[in-house]
Amino acid sequence: MKRIQNEVLSWVQRTTDQHLCLAVTGLSRSGKTAFITSLVNQLLNLNHGSRLPLFSAAREGRLLGAKRVPQRDFGVPSFTYDSGITQLYQLPASWPTPTRGVSKITLALRYRPQNTLRRYLQETATLYLEIIDYPGEWLLDLPMLGQNYLQWSEQMCALLTDQRQHWAEEWLQACADLDPEATVDEQLLASLSQRWTDYLFRCKAEGYHFIQPGRFVLPGEMAGAPALQFFPWPFANRNQLDGRAEKNSNYAILKQRYEYYCQHIVKAFYKDYFLKFDRQIVLVDCLQPLNSGANAFNDMRLALTQLMQSFHYGQRSLFRRLFSPVIDKLLFAASKADHVTHDQHQNLVSLLQQVTQAAWQNAAFEGIQIECLALSSIQATIAGTIDYQQRVQPALRGRRLSDYQPISLYPGEVPAQLPTQQFWQQQGFQFENFTPLDMDADKPLPHLRLDNALEFLLGDKLR
Amino acid sequence: MKRIQNEVLSWVQRTTDQHLCLAVTGLSRSGKTAFITSLVNQLLNLNHGSRLPLFSAAREGRLLGAKRVPQRDFGVPSFTYDSGITQLYQLPASWPTPTRGVSKITLALRYRPQNTLRRYLQETATLYLEIIDYPGEWLLDLPMLGQNYLQWSEQMCALLTDQRQHWAEEWLQACADLDPEATVDEQLLASLSQRWTDYLFRCKAEGYHFIQPGRFVLPGEMAGAPALQFFPWPFANRNQLDGRAEKNSNYAILKQRYEYYCQHIVKAFYKDYFLKFDRQIVLVDCLQPLNSGANAFNDMRLALTQLMQSFHYGQRSLFRRLFSPVIDKLLFAASKADHVTHDQHQNLVSLLQQVTQAAWQNAAFEGIQIECLALSSIQATIAGTIDYQQRVQPALRGRRLSDYQPISLYPGEVPAQLPTQQFWQQQGFQFENFTPLDMDADKPLPHLRLDNALEFLLGDKLR
Repeated sequence: MKRIQNEVLSWVQRTTDQHLCLAVTGLSRSGKTAFITSLVNQLLNLNHGSRLPLFSAAREGRLLGAKRVPQRDFGVPSFTYDSGITQLYQLPASWPTPTRGVSKITLALRYRPQNTLRRYLQETATLYLEIIDYPGEWLLDLPMLGQNYLQWSEQMCALLTDQRQHWAEEWLQACADLDPEATVDEQLLASLSQRWTDYLFRCKAEGYHFIQPGRFVLPGEMAGAPALQFFPWPFANRNQLDGRAEKNSNYAILKQRYEYYCQHIVKAFYKDYFLKFDRQIVLVDCLQPLNSGANAFNDMRLALTQLMQSFHYGQRSLFRRLFSPVIDKLLFAASKADHVTHDQHQNLVSLLQQVTQAAWQNAAFEGIQIECLALSSIQATIAGTIDYQQRVQPALRGRRLSDYQPISLYPGEVPAQLPTQQFWQQQGFQFENFTPLDMDADKPLPHLRLDNALEFLLGDKLR
Repeated sequence: MKRIQNEVLSWVQRTTDQHLCLAVTGLSRSGKTAFITSLVNQLLNLNHGSRLPLFSAAREGRLLGAKRVPQRDFGVPSFTYDSGITQLYQLPASWPTPTRGVSKITLALRYRPQNTLRRYLQETATLYLEIIDYPGEWLLDLPMLGQNYLQWSEQMCALLTDQRQHWAEEWLQACADLDPEATVDEQLLASLSQRWTDYLFRCKAEGYHFIQPGRFVLPGEMAGAPALQFFPWPFANRNQLDGRAEKNSNYAILKQRYEYYCQHIVKAFYKDYFLKFDRQIVLVDCLQPLNSGANAFNDMRLALTQLMQSFHYGQRSLFRRLFSPVIDKLLFAASKADHVTHDQHQNLVSLLQQVTQAAWQNAAFEGIQIECLALSSIQATIAGTIDYQQRVQPALRGRRLSDYQPISLYPGEVPAQLPTQQFWQQQGFQFENFTPLDMDADKPLPHLRLDNALEFLLGDKLR
């Protein structure tokens, strides 16, 4: 009898234990590493001081504990939680070294189900939470699958106005020698590709986010492979060339490499990773583009619009035609909320909604729940007040990242709508980067609204 | 009629054009990059001064010319021939930056067939020569496929004598806390694996070559993945553990990772690369181990014995059981022959024969032709004479790598047999590293016996 009971229990266990794959991404410098480090830290410290009042399973005492479990997939680098924690808790504290490429960490969350039937059958259940971190650049490449080399070249060249035009100048001048119908000169293509890559790195360094092909700035072991040696066709004679250039011409080889990149690199990411994700959080740093000006801000909007195509599940979307996705919840989080004063947080959320909604309203997000919030994964400032223009104003205190000096400041008002011409002319916003606060090693990392994020991403799975 | 003639010609062309995949490898610092750079340079300069008298197709004027052709496989990095040539021809000249991982370069060799029937059908034919460069460490891993985790652990720990014991000391001491049956502690395994990796890097830095697992010292994008986080079981209680330790114990996880490494990393190399090779050259630097002493020399012998298992095609060999290999010619080349005087070259070849023959005599190399020779891919010294002990002796003149000073020296006698105890006691050998000679940009790279190597590796394909 005992044996049967045990077997039933073990069967219930197997069927009720759940596995959830949470994907974390963001445009570069949006704080992915800080987010994962803090999320894991809060969950591991559930019974040692984590403050997660808006995470229902924790608030109601149903979440009993969390522990790290061995990674099942031996082929993917592990997320370096321990070294991140060491950097944060050392004196003076410093930000964790950012990750490159993909990494993973898995937690087992033990909880008491709320559901009556499940409670009757078992005391506790386990949710295996696999967190996977990957570069946002990889999502930006998706639309390439819907473009041929000509269309992509047109789009890339149309972007070359203002600063982008200036940064692409060297590449464009070097292209002068490029004869489309001449027999391929691999050295020339390699050198022109290098200049296109230099241009992409320059965009990235200047805080621009729409970088294509994304793999060019994170090549890994593909560095130097012909698959990463192409660039948009720079001249307006595109339509005359297609179909005419010989198989071994410069033009034809560029086109072949573009197609190889789409088929073998872009598609591989979707097949090997994306299709296994259950939930997705996209971190967005809205503050840096506000600092940098109208062009950088509009570029961020463009990048987010591109990125959202990976979540258009409408029947006629590119994505649905190519893949069968499963993500059912998508969270956009404005990171670094602690870098503006509390009274500005609502504006930050409104702004993020405005930025993403353009894409969202025009597309069918069938069966996918989307939300925006503002959070700080690891709080680096303390709220205070300063006297400014004879008024007591909310302010931030912290240590400036550039010189480690303690400062108090009011960074300005975040526009609640897409910024107007007037906003950019006033330059009313000056956001500073801070170092993490020196922290007490006994306490979990301080955060803002990480519990909201946990509730949206995991809450329903812990009922 | 003209049309039929053309079609026949085109059919003949297709069936007579050949593709040959030449794989180049070697233990580290054996001169792979210099070899490929020089080989390509000689072939591209066939009509511009290459001296290749022992390469029959060139001597007989049947080899008409060579050119680089675009790489067909877009996914593999290209061999950086151009930057290597730039480094060699600049003033002062320097060695090309060594390659890491895999790279490829393809040449088309146009020749006039000797064969009467083929000559009747066509004027000229083309041999597509694909040269692929890969780390010798990858071949050293093959024997792991024939061992289980226990057997491998025993072999690795048995190696820990003399200097290896000293270098592994830190790893071994850190293992004291390792409880085989305790639930896996991934952080502990990661840190102990790091110490094992440190030990392997130390062996490599000291000129030792038998490094396992080979991928630990060249991890690429796998850096930080659990697949590269294991190490041999350090204690003698191995036999009691196997089968007893729980699924999630430290011991069981190490064993699983070992098996994953063999199945997914070692096997993948053989499937994806090795089985496509037609010819193989293994470069060996015999001089450095002669400098370093008996232990380093014996380690090189051990590494070569391991490496040769990849070429044991006998019916009962591990290799034959796992794969269907196609390599039909295997060349061992003692590189840096220009770093000893001419009168020592024959001894260098004899020594290499002795070193490799131990493995060779005990194993069946069915259908595979093996040869040994001594060569210098890029000659860095000029032969001269010095007065030594009142005798005129052959000597070398060149520029010492360590301080760029011109020197003349007689490095000593290379033993023609495996060195005896007496040789090691006398320390009669002092080989120096040289920089490349400053070269005339109009002329191909100077070499010694690269033409012998070409004849052995390609000669029969250009008949």
